[in-house]
Amino acid sequence: MRSYRKELWFNIPRRMGFVDITGDVEACLSESGVREGLCLVNAMHITASVFINDNEGGLHEDYARWLEELAPHEPVDRYLHNRTGEENGDAHLKRQVMGREVVVAVTQGKLDFGPWERIFYGEFDGRRRKRVLVKIIVE
Amino acid sequence: MRSYRKELWFNIPRRMGFVDITGDVEACLSESGVREGLCLVNAMHITASVFINDNEGGLHEDYARWLEELAPHEPVDRYLHNRTGEENGDAHLKRQVMGREVVVAVTQGKLDFGPWERIFYGEFDGRRRKRVLVKIIVE
Amino acid sequence: MRSYRKELWFNIPRRMGFVDITGDVEACLSESGVREGLCLVNAMHITASVFINDNEGGLHEDYARWLEELAPHEPVDRYLHNRTGEENGDAHLKRQVMGREVVVAVTQGKLDFGPWERIFYGEFDGRRRKRVLVKIIVE
Repeated sequence: MRSYRKELWFNIPRRMGFVDITGDVEACLSESGVREGLCLVNAMHITASVFINDNEGGLHEDYARWLEELAPHEPVDRYLHNRTGEENGDAHLKRQVMGREVVVAVTQGKLDFGPWERIFYGEFDGRRRKRVLVKIIVE
Repeated sequence: MRSYRKELWFNIPRRMGFVDITGDVEACLSESGVREGLCLVNAMHITASVFINDNEGGLHEDYARWLEELAPHEPVDRYLHNRTGEENGDAHLKRQVMGREVVVAVTQGKLDFGPWERIFYGEFDGRRRKRVLVKIIVE
Repeated sequence: MRSYRKELWFNIPRRMGFVDITGDVEACLSESGVREGLCLVNAMHITASVFINDNEGGLHEDYARWLEELAPHEPVDRYLHNRTGEENGDAHLKRQVMGREVVVAVTQGKLDFGPWERIFYGEFDGRRRKRVLVKIIVE
């Protein structure tokens, strides 16, 4: 096998939320059989993020509060984007702060991580099914 | 062909602006003949961004206003960087929020995108010719 | 050689600081012998960044001040994360603004850079040894 592709599906029951998907990505890597290469993990939706940080609940609450300060959800007419009938203008901004994707080195068949690195799906416009793409490229 | 490289040139007539470059990148991919791999698209200038989001004009106005709140252009003496004689200190900050680059999976000869993903060039210090690099690596 | 991996170590004597690591990454690339490919450079710690911008001291002071405005270090009880006994809640937020990683094209054995692009290690919780990963993948 030379390259590997898989979609992961999520349905976050709130508007904003963070899910540790490290185990899912590790399962993909194992299934791919790749030993050396790069692993791209990206949100396929433009109101969601994939990022790497700490699996600590207090931090996730800090992120949620901070992002709400930087780009408040309300009043929804604050965003010209919401003239389209949507109410997710803020989600498009929050996603830019947290990022769309991560690229992780694959070394000797493992995600080549530092001590606390974990991969998260970040949702900013939830309550519906959305996808993350995992693409692994062998050297 | 094993790898592919192309520069895209832009000259945005205002200080700040966003341009949908998805078609340009798709043309590069087609020219490359790559079927499976990764496509890196990055700003070659440090006061510009390449990012993926929605092709909706209201949203782009929201981005412009929000970035101006986060890192105002004026007063220009707000930024120590402007002591160099430049007036683009704010642009170096705005670019960090929006990001330098995107990495997109290539699957079966196509950019492997979710439903609304489009690639944008984001300019924060325009009115001169600047470049974006497209580099495609085959598996 | 088909892929290359190296860790770079840093010990920034202050809480926040920026170090130009372009020369270190160029030395890795030279050692790897790779002519065409992608070079991933990422912080291995979740309170640090790797990013590309300008090597100008005034700008770095602007970054430090701006990040402190966006995510102040104090009061430390502002962050729920600090209930763990740490005092680096702000550093986890600052790192998201500046990013975890960069992916740089390698063309004809060189980092394929625009005129002013330089790679930086950004530290937001320093005074201890921390690592950056350089992974180079040949086409």
